[in-house]
Amino acid sequence: MSGNSFGALFRMTTWGESHGPALGVVIDGCPPGIPLSSEDIQKELDRRRPGVATVSSPRQERDRVEILSGVFEGKTTGTPISLLVRNEDVDSRAYEEWREIFRPGHADFTYQMKYGTRDHRGGGRASARETVGRVAAGAVAKKILARENLKITNHTLELGGIRAQRIEEEEIERNPFRCPDREAAAAMEKRVQEVKEQGDSVGGIIEIRVQGCPAGLGEPVFDKLEADLAKGLMSIGAVRGVEIGAGFNAARMTGAECNDPMSATGFEKNDAGGILGGISTGSDIVLRVAVKPIPSIRLEQNTVNHSFQQVSIQIKGRHDVSAIPRINAVCEAMVAVVLADHLLRQKATSSYILPR
Amino acid sequence: MSGNSFGALFRMTTWGESHGPALGVVIDGCPPGIPLSSEDIQKELDRRRPGVATVSSPRQERDRVEILSGVFEGKTTGTPISLLVRNEDVDSRAYEEWREIFRPGHADFTYQMKYGTRDHRGGGRASARETVGRVAAGAVAKKILARENLKITNHTLELGGIRAQRIEEEEIERNPFRCPDREAAAAMEKRVQEVKEQGDSVGGIIEIRVQGCPAGLGEPVFDKLEADLAKGLMSIGAVRGVEIGAGFNAARMTGAECNDPMSATGFEKNDAGGILGGISTGSDIVLRVAVKPIPSIRLEQNTVNHSFQQVSIQIKGRHDVSAIPRINAVCEAMVAVVLADHLLRQKATSSYILPR
Amino acid sequence: MSGNSFGALFRMTTWGESHGPALGVVIDGCPPGIPLSSEDIQKELDRRRPGVATVSSPRQERDRVEILSGVFEGKTTGTPISLLVRNEDVDSRAYEEWREIFRPGHADFTYQMKYGTRDHRGGGRASARETVGRVAAGAVAKKILARENLKITNHTLELGGIRAQRIEEEEIERNPFRCPDREAAAAMEKRVQEVKEQGDSVGGIIEIRVQGCPAGLGEPVFDKLEADLAKGLMSIGAVRGVEIGAGFNAARMTGAECNDPMSATGFEKNDAGGILGGISTGSDIVLRVAVKPIPSIRLEQNTVNHSFQQVSIQIKGRHDVSAIPRINAVCEAMVAVVLADHLLRQKATSSYILPR
Amino acid sequence: MSGNSFGALFRMTTWGESHGPALGVVIDGCPPGIPLSSEDIQKELDRRRPGVATVSSPRQERDRVEILSGVFEGKTTGTPISLLVRNEDVDSRAYEEWREIFRPGHADFTYQMKYGTRDHRGGGRASARETVGRVAAGAVAKKILARENLKITNHTLELGGIRAQRIEEEEIERNPFRCPDREAAAAMEKRVQEVKEQGDSVGGIIEIRVQGCPAGLGEPVFDKLEADLAKGLMSIGAVRGVEIGAGFNAARMTGAECNDPMSATGFEKNDAGGILGGISTGSDIVLRVAVKPIPSIRLEQNTVNHSFQQVSIQIKGRHDVSAIPRINAVCEAMVAVVLADHLLRQKATSSYILPR
Repeated sequence: MSGNSFGALFRMTTWGESHGPALGVVIDGCPPGIPLSSEDIQKELDRRRPGVATVSSPRQERDRVEILSGVFEGKTTGTPISLLVRNEDVDSRAYEEWREIFRPGHADFTYQMKYGTRDHRGGGRASARETVGRVAAGAVAKKILARENLKITNHTLELGGIRAQRIEEEEIERNPFRCPDREAAAAMEKRVQEVKEQGDSVGGIIEIRVQGCPAGLGEPVFDKLEADLAKGLMSIGAVRGVEIGAGFNAARMTGAECNDPMSATGFEKNDAGGILGGISTGSDIVLRVAVKPIPSIRLEQNTVNHSFQQVSIQIKGRHDVSAIPRINAVCEAMVAVVLADHLLRQKATSSYILPR
Repeated sequence: MSGNSFGALFRMTTWGESHGPALGVVIDGCPPGIPLSSEDIQKELDRRRPGVATVSSPRQERDRVEILSGVFEGKTTGTPISLLVRNEDVDSRAYEEWREIFRPGHADFTYQMKYGTRDHRGGGRASARETVGRVAAGAVAKKILARENLKITNHTLELGGIRAQRIEEEEIERNPFRCPDREAAAAMEKRVQEVKEQGDSVGGIIEIRVQGCPAGLGEPVFDKLEADLAKGLMSIGAVRGVEIGAGFNAARMTGAECNDPMSATGFEKNDAGGILGGISTGSDIVLRVAVKPIPSIRLEQNTVNHSFQQVSIQIKGRHDVSAIPRINAVCEAMVAVVLADHLLRQKATSSYILPR
Repeated sequence: MSGNSFGALFRMTTWGESHGPALGVVIDGCPPGIPLSSEDIQKELDRRRPGVATVSSPRQERDRVEILSGVFEGKTTGTPISLLVRNEDVDSRAYEEWREIFRPGHADFTYQMKYGTRDHRGGGRASARETVGRVAAGAVAKKILARENLKITNHTLELGGIRAQRIEEEEIERNPFRCPDREAAAAMEKRVQEVKEQGDSVGGIIEIRVQGCPAGLGEPVFDKLEADLAKGLMSIGAVRGVEIGAGFNAARMTGAECNDPMSATGFEKNDAGGILGGISTGSDIVLRVAVKPIPSIRLEQNTVNHSFQQVSIQIKGRHDVSAIPRINAVCEAMVAVVLADHLLRQKATSSYILPR
Repeated sequence: MSGNSFGALFRMTTWGESHGPALGVVIDGCPPGIPLSSEDIQKELDRRRPGVATVSSPRQERDRVEILSGVFEGKTTGTPISLLVRNEDVDSRAYEEWREIFRPGHADFTYQMKYGTRDHRGGGRASARETVGRVAAGAVAKKILARENLKITNHTLELGGIRAQRIEEEEIERNPFRCPDREAAAAMEKRVQEVKEQGDSVGGIIEIRVQGCPAGLGEPVFDKLEADLAKGLMSIGAVRGVEIGAGFNAARMTGAECNDPMSATGFEKNDAGGILGGISTGSDIVLRVAVKPIPSIRLEQNTVNHSFQQVSIQIKGRHDVSAIPRINAVCEAMVAVVLADHLLRQKATSSYILPR
């Protein structure tokens, strides 16, 4: 009810602050009998760690995960899985100057308004470090999806105004931005370097695809599959827009253009993005999310302090230039959790596709 | 859990099929002592009724609402409010031919895959008539919002590829499309007429604004205000994308451009769209949704029947050319329910007095 | 959240006041493909109707149920089932004198304290008429249970201080109290007649049994099967205590006496009442509930009005002498809903095949 | 949904197994600004630790709690509070012999049936050690209650068949059984010693009282205050029955005896146990729970192994003779969580007693 849990049957509850002793997640509803090791989770956590010097922050967290419950002799037991990651590279001194200042583009002002207090160190609960718990839970969700042959991929469609012109899958892992277009990747690198020198930051657009999703997942009316996906993705701090299939372009199509005809072999195209009436069609699920630029920049900005006096600030801490590509792993995790949840829900509520 | 309820503290549960005996909604969690009459609700229902010949369908439903519980001597009592609307203008014969055919762009195929059965008449539960319950609940939510001086407005930014070039509020009610630009409205009318003659349909983009929202609404981490709004809006059948504030444009801005500076008098601009870190800032909340074209078109389309044999179809029933402007009232209703819910949640979870 | 819904996957939401236009329930989460007619529901509603002159009230409600949604061509579709019962024999004049008086043993005082207002007519939402919705939902739950061969029975162990000394199943339907002991039933009849003449009322104890429940239902830790059953039963207005298996007697046993030994053919006795560690064992589930006497009595009582002035009252309306046997049907309904819910939950959360 | 969370607005999620690395709880929904230290929690944890040689087990856990999140500079922030207790005195060798045997009166059989696997060491998740998380959450709940002047007390009414004949509050802390009657306490001591020597165990009845509860807490219809209390208490492993106010005795009273008359100064007696129609009256809330004997006994018992072959066993590990008095602290914790939850719910849903 206070917003720190997500999912109905496969349910994660995250906790922890950027500069507190630790971060973690409790996963309730994971079925028994699934092989699970800390390596399975560590592998996903490593994907969201800073690594690429040009884009990412120099805060070095090893993010070692510890499984505290729910796994017995290498397999899940059906009881809650508690995962713990200690904060290690914590240096809160740099944040002392922000104790009573609302940094632009951050949640400082709104947390203060809502709670009348806040842990100002590193953004506290509003820090992107909170996503450690999401990615850990996503790793568990992916184990469930793998069992049913669902696979999630992501790539960066746009970064700092530069857009990929083609999708070549083998390129994605070859550049630090996860860009599927080699030339666009080169231009992105140049753009990021430039912005970094200016002390500014950039946003972009990423695309997520789900392959192998069976038809029948999703609950009408309010828990449509795209509605839960939109909520999950919009709950990531930097995300400002979500679209499915043709998305905002659908607004410019006619019905004849937008409808996906069917033939005996299935859908002839996929402008629906794999979901009709809130339920998966069996085609790939295709989503795009808009990511805003990192709000912490070195450039001078105007803002106010707790007394609402104007101050001019420069943020010199350890910060990424773009949330991309680290946020890609977080988006994947949220999609994984939504799909694992709806797989379990489908088992409970339908007697057709997945017979007991 | 099966997706027919929405909201945590202010919670609506809708029920009913397009061609069943009735549609309705149960609202649980409405505070006591709020004046409420069937006229309050009827007024909102009338806003989603077909009316404009060029855009809307000739199915004529009076949609008379009956309050069955939760109101005593003109005021809410704190107990559940049950609202009923009988289906009157039901003619299911036209749907007999679709009993075993999956209409493109509809939920026919996916409901059949999920449930192994479906009420094929008028789309059954997946029909836009389901939104009668949402709009009725939105009417009650608006009574709560009005008490706190929140106000929701909407206009059509784009229809059939034609975009409003200016926002003149007084224009909105002067044309059938709720377009805030007189010239664009004229072009929209021409476009809609043209498409109608072709037997096709169009989509568009609408913008929703919330004025008077206090700072402090929204729950981190997963129930961020924009996350709940995105879910609510994406749960409307025709919506394919949602963005907040600068939205997808934020992906092309730098941090210096995107951050909203503050001065002693408040935020100097509002690219955040009134929400930071998932919590309202006190500025206007600004959302845009992409609406796909109505899938029921007169033009010939290829699809399959229940035996997966290819068939060619033409849909000649009573159908709108665009979900806009009827869907605008539904979007408003969803936003109203989300805000009423978070107002109540804020009362429960915060001990700090909300500043206005 | 406001307490008018019950169940996680099989979820009912009841609404309606004693003297409002109607009462009803929305059931969300019923699987598709289950044959369901209004007769199925009517049959159960008839079991809670007043009928036995000596025990029950002369208010004559036919309680005709109308299925408004969720059923298509005689079978459930997986969408919400809305059930409506109009209040017909409503005469609110008798309640005018209680508009500003708190009747002892009723919820008048507490509703006024909680909400600052209340529908005083017939107890409004706190009336036992609210259980119409529960019994209707229980009828649907029983259709699910029947498919899995679960069966619920009930009998009256004690009424007005008279206790059944033996359990003879064939006696239960032969007397108006559902007493399984012919001699005790005769004594109960005498006792009820006596109390009725005095203008007083009596309570009793009823026992509910579930036969055919497979092992494996129930969720540790907080949603133990007996915990959800206790909540469901305690949520019935007149219930003041619930026990499972040996119940309060277990407090006086030693471990050697209380533990149920197992042999190759199963449990050798059933003091656990069919549940261990919150999960069903496969033995019969055995529950007992304490029912307080009807608070509306003709005898003079002291109480206060809204101004907290003392008044002396006599309640002369149409009232039962005991909630038994009508409440038995309500208890059965609650047990049915809890079991249907946990059957669906078990499908979702376990990958192990339930042995029978 | 999988039953490891409890509470709606003040919500705890417990995790951990008896012989796993740690146990803990995440509390979501605690309001900001409440002073909270690990000492506050430790104090309550110490109340459930084994201590009294005659009744309790020699497993010595220090149960040191660590606050991992949600507290900043000594006060809660409104974000989730994660509490961790490491298991230290773990010796799993003794449990190796039970790996494939279902101990009578334990959850061994039902967990195996439900999940097809289980952590057999010390009962795994079904161990009473799970209540560490409950008691820790209860400590936080009590801080909220204290702010509103609510106070919870408990005493042992009955142990091993010996019943307290009088309630002398000052006696409760003077004997190891929390018995309010000095002579009964002496008889209990004798009884416990005797049973211990026999290698058997005993149960009892405890009474919980809540003082200072305002009128107006509780939600009709299904979330009646006594319904949530019954669920919370019944979810404790050893509890087999719950009653409120006159409880099972109410079944033997007439309406005239059972109803609590009111005068200008309030209720004249309290057979309702402080709750009418599911909502608190302002009188003390009075509950009693039946506690079964500890199932782990040294006496020989018949049971079966995983192959359903009969075996005869003697359980020689470290076990309490009675769950009383350690379970008393757990009962108090559950009552505290229910009340804290309903205090927050009342703030959200009512406009009367607790104005914004």
